[in-house]
Amino acid sequence: MSTHSLPAPLSANDLTLFNKWWHAANYLSVGQIYLLRNALLREPLKLDDVKKRLLGHWGTTPGLNFIWLHLNRIIREQNHDILFIAGPGHGAPGLIASTWMEGTYTDYFPDVTQDEEGMTRLFRQFSFPGGIPSHAAATTPGSIHEGGELGYSLSHAFGAAFDNPDLIVACVVGDGEAETGPLATSWHSNKFLDPKTDGAVLPILHLNGYKIANPTVLARIPKQELRDLLKGYGYEPIFVEGHDPDPMHQAMATAMDHAFAQIRTIQENARTHNDTQRPTWPMIVLRSPKGWTGPKTVDGLRTEGFWRSHQVPVDHMNKPGHLAVLEDWMRSYKPADLFDENGCLNADIAALAPKGNKRMSATPHANGGALMRPLRLPDFQAHAVELTAPGQTIAESTRILGNWLKDVMAANAESRNFRVVSPDENNSNRLNAVLDVTNRAWNAETYPYDDHLAPDGHVMEILSEHTCQGWLEGYLLTGRHGFMSCYEAFIHIVDSMVNQHAKWLKTAAETEWRRPIASLNYLLTSHVWRQDHNGFSHQDPGFLNHMVNKKPETVRIYLPPDANTLLCVADHCLRSRDRINVIVAGKQPELQWLDKDAAITHCQQGIGIWEWASNDKESEPDVVIGCAGDVPTLEALAAVSILNSHLPDLKIRVINVVDLMTLPTPEQHPHGLPDETFDALFTTDKPVIFAFHGYPTLIHQLIYKRRNAANFHVHGFREEGTTTTPFDMTVRNHLDRFHLVGNVIRRVPKLASKAAYAHQAVRDKLAEHERYVQEYGEDMPEIRNWSWPR
Amino acid sequence: MSTHSLPAPLSANDLTLFNKWWHAANYLSVGQIYLLRNALLREPLKLDDVKKRLLGHWGTTPGLNFIWLHLNRIIREQNHDILFIAGPGHGAPGLIASTWMEGTYTDYFPDVTQDEEGMTRLFRQFSFPGGIPSHAAATTPGSIHEGGELGYSLSHAFGAAFDNPDLIVACVVGDGEAETGPLATSWHSNKFLDPKTDGAVLPILHLNGYKIANPTVLARIPKQELRDLLKGYGYEPIFVEGHDPDPMHQAMATAMDHAFAQIRTIQENARTHNDTQRPTWPMIVLRSPKGWTGPKTVDGLRTEGFWRSHQVPVDHMNKPGHLAVLEDWMRSYKPADLFDENGCLNADIAALAPKGNKRMSATPHANGGALMRPLRLPDFQAHAVELTAPGQTIAESTRILGNWLKDVMAANAESRNFRVVSPDENNSNRLNAVLDVTNRAWNAETYPYDDHLAPDGHVMEILSEHTCQGWLEGYLLTGRHGFMSCYEAFIHIVDSMVNQHAKWLKTAAETEWRRPIASLNYLLTSHVWRQDHNGFSHQDPGFLNHMVNKKPETVRIYLPPDANTLLCVADHCLRSRDRINVIVAGKQPELQWLDKDAAITHCQQGIGIWEWASNDKESEPDVVIGCAGDVPTLEALAAVSILNSHLPDLKIRVINVVDLMTLPTPEQHPHGLPDETFDALFTTDKPVIFAFHGYPTLIHQLIYKRRNAANFHVHGFREEGTTTTPFDMTVRNHLDRFHLVGNVIRRVPKLASKAAYAHQAVRDKLAEHERYVQEYGEDMPEIRNWSWPR
Repeated sequence: MSTHSLPAPLSANDLTLFNKWWHAANYLSVGQIYLLRNALLREPLKLDDVKKRLLGHWGTTPGLNFIWLHLNRIIREQNHDILFIAGPGHGAPGLIASTWMEGTYTDYFPDVTQDEEGMTRLFRQFSFPGGIPSHAAATTPGSIHEGGELGYSLSHAFGAAFDNPDLIVACVVGDGEAETGPLATSWHSNKFLDPKTDGAVLPILHLNGYKIANPTVLARIPKQELRDLLKGYGYEPIFVEGHDPDPMHQAMATAMDHAFAQIRTIQENARTHNDTQRPTWPMIVLRSPKGWTGPKTVDGLRTEGFWRSHQVPVDHMNKPGHLAVLEDWMRSYKPADLFDENGCLNADIAALAPKGNKRMSATPHANGGALMRPLRLPDFQAHAVELTAPGQTIAESTRILGNWLKDVMAANAESRNFRVVSPDENNSNRLNAVLDVTNRAWNAETYPYDDHLAPDGHVMEILSEHTCQGWLEGYLLTGRHGFMSCYEAFIHIVDSMVNQHAKWLKTAAETEWRRPIASLNYLLTSHVWRQDHNGFSHQDPGFLNHMVNKKPETVRIYLPPDANTLLCVADHCLRSRDRINVIVAGKQPELQWLDKDAAITHCQQGIGIWEWASNDKESEPDVVIGCAGDVPTLEALAAVSILNSHLPDLKIRVINVVDLMTLPTPEQHPHGLPDETFDALFTTDKPVIFAFHGYPTLIHQLIYKRRNAANFHVHGFREEGTTTTPFDMTVRNHLDRFHLVGNVIRRVPKLASKAAYAHQAVRDKLAEHERYVQEYGEDMPEIRNWSWPR
Repeated sequence: MSTHSLPAPLSANDLTLFNKWWHAANYLSVGQIYLLRNALLREPLKLDDVKKRLLGHWGTTPGLNFIWLHLNRIIREQNHDILFIAGPGHGAPGLIASTWMEGTYTDYFPDVTQDEEGMTRLFRQFSFPGGIPSHAAATTPGSIHEGGELGYSLSHAFGAAFDNPDLIVACVVGDGEAETGPLATSWHSNKFLDPKTDGAVLPILHLNGYKIANPTVLARIPKQELRDLLKGYGYEPIFVEGHDPDPMHQAMATAMDHAFAQIRTIQENARTHNDTQRPTWPMIVLRSPKGWTGPKTVDGLRTEGFWRSHQVPVDHMNKPGHLAVLEDWMRSYKPADLFDENGCLNADIAALAPKGNKRMSATPHANGGALMRPLRLPDFQAHAVELTAPGQTIAESTRILGNWLKDVMAANAESRNFRVVSPDENNSNRLNAVLDVTNRAWNAETYPYDDHLAPDGHVMEILSEHTCQGWLEGYLLTGRHGFMSCYEAFIHIVDSMVNQHAKWLKTAAETEWRRPIASLNYLLTSHVWRQDHNGFSHQDPGFLNHMVNKKPETVRIYLPPDANTLLCVADHCLRSRDRINVIVAGKQPELQWLDKDAAITHCQQGIGIWEWASNDKESEPDVVIGCAGDVPTLEALAAVSILNSHLPDLKIRVINVVDLMTLPTPEQHPHGLPDETFDALFTTDKPVIFAFHGYPTLIHQLIYKRRNAANFHVHGFREEGTTTTPFDMTVRNHLDRFHLVGNVIRRVPKLASKAAYAHQAVRDKLAEHERYVQEYGEDMPEIRNWSWPR
């Protein structure tokens, strides 16, 4: 379908009004970038009217304004609920302009009124200290999409569309963003969307040809190649190309009509006629000049339609002629024809906007917390592992969790507001029970022997951590709930995405009208200590380091040592709001420590002395053995049992940490223990041998303000590993029971006389381990079969 | 082109031999996964012959073996240099089998001989403690590609091909990997490759249909859609589909002939006929069953051609019938027909391998250090900024660096072994001088007004940090040099990639035959403190935290405070080997501190007292002011000047840190200062107010073992930011001069009497700042115009 010889759905009057809306939005966009005052250009423009620092991105903005306007027409005519996602979020001036024109901006920020004073405030606050950022952010009404790091618009769009059958997400993808990996694969999200039970996504690829200082790839391949690519992604592209406004309006209106008709047909086929074939969804390719309607040239250099329009097309305003370029540019939109005496948008133009919640700027889907219903959470205690005593029973903790997640899935099946997400690891992570009550979302070809694939499945699996993360963020930001499991090493793939989500959550919490949303919950499993089988490339616990740098209000880290604590923690996380919860827990068969009551108490405290493993009652301990994480807890307790049997007089206190953020001070993190409590637990002068799941320095980083900090000796991951046995992984990193025993003896002054002997004994045990493993390829029976002495 | 009615390039004898090679490779692959002994199955298989833990991935392996075999034919016939990249690196059993069959494995590991004893050792060592990992790694001859985290095969392949006109990189892309974002965009690398001066990449998309527990997207879309997609990426796909070996051999041989003929034609057109059009490169789509030739069913469940073949198709060997499944499977390859009495591969089969360095397993390109020529490095001092005194002159540090990089580029133009890489930020990062002597690599459409685009350009820019990183890794691993610049916040996008590269470097350093390669050099600029204009989403200095967790032998972090130190550091990094060097430096105009001689001395020490800024000569200081990073150094010195003028008796020592890894102990990092030196610098009891570029806790993490650790008070990024002024960024995070002054006064005991007064003075200054910025949108003149008092 080409733009030539198309019908002309817009009347002459429509065209006049459409151009006026577009001019108004463009005028307001330029005003935000440039002006401090003289907003309506009632006076000749003076240097003083212009901001000293010129910030913001003009290049993509007129295109965004153009698209917004045409979506408004569709909403008015067809009454859709449309959520707008601006992949080029640095086109915020455009989003904000449209939002102001629709009255929503004033609804949310009452002092930014729809008059000259408000317009002046709108201009001034943009990219101005104390004002609003130059990229779309949580402060932007109608937006769920942070406009900083590029690549996530389409996966956010699909996340928003899942389980929202009446929603259409119009997602503008910039041609710069389209070069990113996360975006490039997220086109395939259409194989995971059910036209019957999910909404629709209308991608609008905006080819304006340039990035910061380079042409874009997709704008510089032959049209047929681009068409092939988009068809290969499973879309039918509709091209809208040119620069002359009137034909472009007609072409865009035609394209929109066509696209929405196709969406309607697809949805009807699926919903009324039960057509189960994956449809070919429409999409629009808008090829328009970068900085469209901006200055053609500045200082004789090509500007409109070139990368020089990317940010501020004309700057250094004191350079001869520059002020005039700006003034001519702004006056070209004829503000007097757009705004009335008071600076209010003329009524006939304003009438192009939809009403109330139908305005994209006001859609409640963009303030998901307002729509969110809490999950129904079945009692996790029904799944608790029965224990006779600590350290006797073996269970796979994540499999137990999977049983409860199945119940959660079932309990919320009708609400359709809970999804489980994983990059092809759901079963590997042993959450497969959820497949008893739902399927994997899959809307591509199937074979008769396939299992648990269905278009409306609520387990989301694609081998792209980026897409998983983007889907989940989009789902949460529009008011639903989710749970993502991932191999611990590979969660680093989304480091920067979770960064941005954390920043969004911080800003959203500071933005009064944003309602709390469900937390982003990670289960990191197949973790560093049990990637003995996959090897060094899979061994990395550094995501915890990454997370502790984020705002303490946002981040929680839990290291449940067994199944019952994992259940407790997961239940807590699914109830929490506005957080990023990171849970690290193993999937392999492992000893269980706490029965359900003990687990609940322990998790409520987040940290505590395990009395049953300690022998320092009614006395000061000689040493504290701390542990955090399932494997470290196992090794710590095994070390305690060795010490107990060889040194029965040694007073040991065992402390287990579930909630890592109890370790810093309360000033550093809201979960931080008061100093008195911390000192009471860890003493102020006794050696603390701490077995930790992650990099040892993370503990030092968390406790450096504590009185006893200098006596902490932390064992954890030292970047040593390969394909080996599970216990050998701990040995290589000195986290094993023998190294722990050795360190206890070295650090406790009263054991000085035993140090040499103990040192040799530890070496002998390690040598025995080494020999056995080399011979048999598995751990010694005394390791494999160890349990806590009754 | 389809597989039907094709010519049959292989004779009956060829087919027999090809099948034998393939069987031998498959047999050896299975042997590695399963067997401890009885390698040639001379005895009936016993449970004891089988490893206790079964590890490794069979699913992709027969396909890799099949492809390898057919590439060998091409090499024998056409004498190409081919580098093999196995995207599914978890198919290591296949790579290792082929490598052993070619004799290379024995060349590199002489005790793994080409006889029964060596074969037994080959089997035993695989995924066995003390042996080799289950994924391709630095220990795998012929490989530059870590087989852990997926997604980077194609960008590595292109990186290897750049500036290697005689090399063809055969890159197998798994259909699981193909779902990742980084892989999905890396297909577009063909727009950055020059057929004239670069080599070729032959992608082989291996559709075996399944991931761990799911079908793959690309295997489940209609063939026409897949063809469209690949044509849209700019390739002409040749399909090889089926499961019956003989026709598949014929089809693959035909496809290979066709693909290599196309490559030859393309290269001739470009090289002889100067055809400058971007060619449509060939690629192969191999659709073959997962676990091809493996057990059809196990326990009655579909196995071959299904995800159950992904890893170990039959396990739990003591289950009835399982041992027989394994034995039947292995015997189906007829080992007695493949290996002679001694366990040596039969000569007629072995003859299918190319000779010497033409063997893909022995290509020197896979041991890049062996080919690497050092860069010619022009004297950086020629670009040093001239200073009359510290803190008077303004320069843009990265622009100065760019001038030197231009010289580096020019000096090595003939060798064509240096590339500068950036995700569309080269000019923004002010390295644009390099474009005076080279161009941006670009082989897509161009317009007359485009600037500095050319197919053979050596500045690589695509808006994909993943692709940039992958290209650079591939380029370095094949023995060349490079330099990557990136906005600091966005470098997190490649956290997991650099992780994997760091792990590769560690393992390579432990692998005797691997020669050192050029370091991976990052310039992180547009850094957190000068993203006042882009806002909160661009503000994140956490990459440093990420890097310090890697092996200390691998990681270096430099924070040059000005242009001359930046030049010094960059020169050092380009000379270094086997490291990941992270340089953080600003691009904005900033005060310059050290002349070239002082800069050289300072950088050699990595840390030092700035005597000219200190007033504690011949006495103990009252306070130490430390700083690391350009903006923190500026604020620290401004604080010192305020203190000097108000409290002339206060003895201040100023210490600047360029090399961050001087802070930990020598046991923790090879650059760590001895305790005596550290104590002499920072004292053992005086307050240290430390202004740091990154998150404050990173400093605490690095110095927790130092005697004076508890007296360190670190100011750095606290996750506070938005679009504001540069100085306001520091104020929001308490890194500014006024907060520093306040903290000094609070911490120095002898100033206790002034504390209340000082506190109020600081508050007043901050309020004045706040008012000014709100009013004018820029920083106060006293801030903007501040310079160090002469």
